[in-house]
Order: sequence, then C-alpha cells, then structure tokens
Amino acid sequence: MKKVGVAILGLGVVGGGTYKILSEHRELYKKAHDLDVEVVAVLELRKERALALGIPESKIASGIAEICSNPDVDIVVEVMGGVEPAKTFVLNALNAGKSVVTSNKELYCKFSHELEKAAKRNNCGLFYEASCVGGVPVIRALLDNLQGNKITSLMGIINGTTNYILTKMSNSGADYEAVLKEAQRLGYAEANPKNDVEGYDTVYKLSILASLSFHTKIPYTKIYREGITEISLQDIEYGKRLGYVLKLLAIGKNSDNGIEVRVHPTFIPADHPLASVNDSYNAVYITGDSVENVMLYGRGAGALPTGSAIVGDIIYCATHTNYRYSTFENTEFASPSTKFIENFESAYYLRLNAEDKAGVLSNVAAVFSKYNISIAQVIQGNDDNSDGFVPMILITHDTQENSIRKAVAEINSSGAGSEVVAVIRVAS
Amino acid sequence: MKKVGVAILGLGVVGGGTYKILSEHRELYKKAHDLDVEVVAVLELRKERALALGIPESKIASGIAEICSNPDVDIVVEVMGGVEPAKTFVLNALNAGKSVVTSNKELYCKFSHELEKAAKRNNCGLFYEASCVGGVPVIRALLDNLQGNKITSLMGIINGTTNYILTKMSNSGADYEAVLKEAQRLGYAEANPKNDVEGYDTVYKLSILASLSFHTKIPYTKIYREGITEISLQDIEYGKRLGYVLKLLAIGKNSDNGIEVRVHPTFIPADHPLASVNDSYNAVYITGDSVENVMLYGRGAGALPTGSAIVGDIIYCATHTNYRYSTFENTEFASPSTKFIENFESAYYLRLNAEDKAGVLSNVAAVFSKYNISIAQVIQGNDDNSDGFVPMILITHDTQENSIRKAVAEINSSGAGSEVVAVIRVAS
Repeated sequence: MKKVGVAILGLGVVGGGTYKILSEHRELYKKAHDLDVEVVAVLELRKERALALGIPESKIASGIAEICSNPDVDIVVEVMGGVEPAKTFVLNALNAGKSVVTSNKELYCKFSHELEKAAKRNNCGLFYEASCVGGVPVIRALLDNLQGNKITSLMGIINGTTNYILTKMSNSGADYEAVLKEAQRLGYAEANPKNDVEGYDTVYKLSILASLSFHTKIPYTKIYREGITEISLQDIEYGKRLGYVLKLLAIGKNSDNGIEVRVHPTFIPADHPLASVNDSYNAVYITGDSVENVMLYGRGAGALPTGSAIVGDIIYCATHTNYRYSTFENTEFASPSTKFIENFESAYYLRLNAEDKAGVLSNVAAVFSKYNISIAQVIQGNDDNSDGFVPMILITHDTQENSIRKAVAEINSSGAGSEVVAVIRVAS
Repeated sequence: MKKVGVAILGLGVVGGGTYKILSEHRELYKKAHDLDVEVVAVLELRKERALALGIPESKIASGIAEICSNPDVDIVVEVMGGVEPAKTFVLNALNAGKSVVTSNKELYCKFSHELEKAAKRNNCGLFYEASCVGGVPVIRALLDNLQGNKITSLMGIINGTTNYILTKMSNSGADYEAVLKEAQRLGYAEANPKNDVEGYDTVYKLSILASLSFHTKIPYTKIYREGITEISLQDIEYGKRLGYVLKLLAIGKNSDNGIEVRVHPTFIPADHPLASVNDSYNAVYITGDSVENVMLYGRGAGALPTGSAIVGDIIYCATHTNYRYSTFENTEFASPSTKFIENFESAYYLRLNAEDKAGVLSNVAAVFSKYNISIAQVIQGNDDNSDGFVPMILITHDTQENSIRKAVAEINSSGAGSEVVAVIRVAS
C-alpha cells in the first residue's frame, strides 16, 4: 500500500474540513484506493486551532522550512488564502519536490504561470480543483472531459455569498443591507464582504475557468466587473413580474469575433436551469460545440464540500504519476493573438423614473431609436411616489453595451422628464 | 507533437458523431493539447456509411485483425453496442496493445472484470465515460473528483428515451402509446423500444455508476427493475396535483445496513433539482458525506454529446501515461461481503378504485394499519366513471416495500370494495 504524507498549511474553515475528512476516511481510502493517506504535518500560527482538531503537538510545524525538509511530506495542501505568504510557501514546497493542492483562487488566478513553471521544473503536481466552485467538479471537467469541444459559452453562479443574498432578497422582500447583515450573522458573508459582493472572488474564478475553457490565458484584469451592492429590491420584483430571476453571473463567450468575459448582476429567464440555483448553491452552465449544454451544480463553498475537492485532488495526485501543466505562457498578460470584445451584445433591463406627462415616452423612444436600440417590452411600475414621476421598465432586444451607455447618458442629461435609474443586463 | 491514431469500430450515430468531431477539430487539438489526433481506420460493414462521412476507402478495414495489426492505431473506439462481436473485438484490440475507448454500457456492465484484466495485462487504457449519460462527465467525477467521499446516495435520470416520453405525457396529456409512437417517429425511441422503456439500459448504467460510487461491484442482476410501460396518464396528473413529477429514476443507496439499487418510475417533489430535468436531458444527483449534493446535468445521448465523451477519453488516454484499473475482482457476482437490501424503505403513491359506499375506506385503513403503514395524505380522484367506483389516491409515509406488497395483495384479494390499481414509489 502506497503511503501518502500530507501537510496542511492553514487550519481555517477549509483546512479544518480537509483534516476532518482525511482523518475520518483513512480506512476507506486504504480499502477503496489502496492508499494510506495521513496528515503528517500542519502549519498554523494559532496553535489552538490544531489542538481543537485533535492534532498532536508533534505534528505542528514551526515553519514552512520544516515542512519542506520533512521527507514524510509528499503533498502540501495550501488553504491559507490570499497571495502572501501563500505564494512563497507554495513555491518553497514545489522547489522542495512536494506536489501542491490549493484552494486559493486569487493566488492561482494571479500567478498560475509562475506556479506551473515551478511545478514543471520540479516534476511535481499542482492541483486547484478546490479553487473554483467548491466540491463541484468543474476544473477537471474542463481539463479531462470537455477538452474535445470548442467551448462557446460559460455561465456561472460561482459565488455563494452573493447568491445567498440575492436569493434571500427575492424570497423575503428584504433589502440588500438587511440581508447582508443577516448573511454576516449566519457566516455566509464576511465582516468585510467586499471581495464577494463587489465580484472580485467571481472574477478570479472566471479567469481560471475561462482560461481552461478557451485554451488561452484570460487575465483577471481583462474581466469586466460589477458587484451587487447597488441592486435594489424594486428591480428584483419587476424582474420577477417579467419572468426573470436576478443572479450575479460570470459570463465567458468565445466566438470568431473574439472573447468576452464579464461579471455582473444579470436577469435570466425563470425557466433557465441556472435560475433555480438558490441560496449558497453554485452552478456552472457550459456550452460546447459537441456536448451542447452541461450544467454542474452543488455547494460552492464550505468546509466539507471544498474539502471534498481538496481530498479528490490529493487522491488524484497520489494515483497519477505523470503530471500535466498549463501551456499558457504567462499569467499577467493575454496572448497577443487573443482578441477581447469589450463592446459586447446583450439584452438590457432599464428602469426609468419618468415624469407622468405627455411626450416623455416619445422623447425616450427617440433616443433609443437614434442608437438603434429596439425595445422588446415596456411595463409601467406601480410604486408611484405621488411626486409626479412613475417608474417605467423597458426590456431591449440584443444591442451593444456602448449603445446603451450612450443612450442612458443622453437621456439622463437631456432634462426631458425622465432618468434611467437602473441598468441590468439580461441573458437568454 | 504526439501523433494519436484512432480506429473507430462502428459508424452508427455515435461513431459518425465521433468521426465528425475528430475531423473538424484536428487543428484545435494540435493547438490546445499538442496532439495530432487522426482517424486512421474504421470498421463498418455498411461501407456506404463510411463513404457518406467522407472517409476514404483506404481507411475502411477489412476486419478487426487488420486494425489490431496496424501500427498506426493507438486507440480503438468501440461504438458498436451489444455484447458480440463488440466484446471479442475489444479483447482483440487490448491484446494487440491498443487502448480502448467504449460507449458500450451493456458490454462494460456485464464484462468489466474480463475487460479490465485484459487492459491491465497489456498495459493499455480502458475508458468508458461515454457509456453513461452521454456528454455529462459523471464517470470521471466519480473516479477523480468525488473519490474522497463516502457516497451515500445516487439518483439519476439516465435514459433519454423514457425521460422524453414521461415529459411529453406530462406536458401534452397524451397517453403512453401515443407518445411512444411520436418518439419513435422523431428518433428518440427505437423501433423495438424494450431496452429503454423496460429499464434495461438504465439498469446497465446504474450498475456501472453504483459500482464506482460504492467501491464494490454491483452486478446488474442485483438491481430491481421496473419500466414505464404500465404508467397511466391519470397517475401523472394526480401526482402533479400533489406536487410531484414522475421520472424513471435510477437509485443507489449505501448505508450501514447495506446497499439498495433499483430502477423504477418514481414521483419526486416538483422543487427537487431533478424534477426540472426534462425531455431527453439527463442528470445524476449524487450525495456524499463531504460534498453534500452535486448534480451533473446535460444531454445523455446523441451523436455529438456522446461523441464529446468519447473524444474526451481519447485525449485523456493520449495525455495520461499511467492507466488505472478497476479493483473489482469479478463482474458477475457481488463481493460476499456486500449486503443488499431488497426490502427497502420508501414512501408510496397508491391509486385505488374504491366502491363509493360507507365502510370501504375504513377497510383499507385497517389493512394499512395491520402492516404498520401510515398514510400522509389522501385525495379523492375526479374521474368518476359513474360505475359506482371512485379513484382514491393515497400517499404513505416511509414504509417497507414488503409491507406495501402484502397490504396491496390483501386489499386486492379481500373483495371488500376496493382495488389498488397503481403503486408508484415516492422519493424525497
């Protein structure tokens, strides 16, 4: 039976979950995989965390050097998060000949090339299934299952915090601030929620998933980003009336015209498979030219679901002897041959506050017409504030982002009795 | 660049799709995977099929021996279906040192041990992602992603034909025979639909998926099987009223008490993620002790979706040098230590024709009480045939299969004014 020595860097939520899975399943892995997987060392400044998990003091390492020089360590699990010191520790481990399994989306997204090069140079494995969408097997699906496809589209609900908040707003009718507070109380959102609610976490994951999907490095800096902090309950309610559900969507598209990558609140039709992905569940909906549509759904975060992905990588690493490496030649910059589309096409939901008098709608219509924006649907809102203004909701046909921006700017600066107060993209 | 020579055995729907994908994507695979994948030979009795695909006559082999002795063939793709001659051809290929990729669920389910042994002996790869659920990456998810879990439950809609028929019955209100005919006309059902509608195809796939999930061979003969041929539209309609959707479900469960494996029409709650898997779409819903719930969804059949899985395996085979083999020690028999539960627990939907007179319901209730079956819900049906009988629908709480069988037999033989005319299991 092959012995597999594991060191865990960081005993936070995911590190603790990974330790728990590995220690409870040791006999299962012997029987099912002929592997004796043991956590032989941990690195954690807060020693009490290790002791609370029942880890003997002898396994608590004094520093990364001790782990790198420990011949019993085969695989280093990095679950610290953030760039430093995680990056230094991972490079140290690879340079010491240890394979690395990481859940760190920011690190892998920002430094994949450097890490992959180090792994290759040292003939070690580098695995990152846990970096995207927790226990949902999306990285390996892209690497090992769908790689025969030209993938044309990727749409994902890949951040649990924002999906929890949007689901609760929609179900309870509470506004963003109230739901955020509840999410923080329940541990679904961090004290400083910026990384989640402003879409950074989603952007890092989309960078990784889009790079694998489109076979070319998509730097995160190329991804358009808009978070959910400005979403008002009104728009969720109007969207519902029109048959839409609001999600923070990660979107990647690849066509002959180029690649578009964006993260923003998006209305999707209520009968789309992604529309019923609720609470902290996540899903990725992938369209390939052979496979058609595939959706992978599950818990995108949490100690045990993310731990499941980590342990899956550990067993994969221990049972596959030839490691493969990313062929992307850099991390920070896209290949010069990759063309990005910034002026993408989409349908749009617009909410206007319109003065309740003749001629206002025709002024608005004239501006849309000027920018070749055609309107698919108009409804009048019902929350008249008795100030002489009424909400007016418009859904456009597919049009260009730049056209919408120009039209909105023109309407809002014209002083002609109406103002666009919400712009939300609509996916089909 | 590594050259990969492929031979395709059988140019039916999946073989044709595979050829199409490989020939259209040759440049993509060079660029993305550094592989030059070429179909160098095909085996197909109906030569016109090969010619229609644009395959030059020089590549049409005269027999399996020619393919086995062709040094340009690295990987043999078996997409003929059925046991023979597929089995002989696959064994010939493996014994000639060729790796094999197959979509043949019946062959792999019935002879996995013999095939795996031959692959191992010859140091060849044996891949079968395409055998289950078309382009949906479920085999590799079980092998390479979820293998750190103790999987406790597996529920799948894994046959496109039956899901198409049940969806159409539910949406159109047409009965089984009418919808089957339409499905045959559209190519969703075969002229002889037995393999699909009686659940055999689902049983073969469940045997493969449950074996991988539970780390022990589950012979298909151990799987309880009931098809959809007896389903009446009435029951679909009553189920809808009660908040259920009818699906042909493959169910595998693993607990300390043992393993249960069964394929039968099943009511599932309308808000279950599997309930909205419609038409010829398939999905597998897996519950593991770490990952919680994961659902993998997509096209379960068709030329290109199944071709996607085949090509995924070809590329995987070409880029992984160490092959792994099933550790199950046989195919036909379960391990003596595997305990199967035949008297499983479930909730039940029962439809009775009850004489419309006093005392009938209390007679029925007395029988259920005798077998410790408790009733969760009763509704009276509305299609009174004016013959003095009314339909009565009961949903039970969880109870044992044997208790239901005994109770139904007792009610139906008692002559006490009611008859159970439909029994459908209900999953939660």
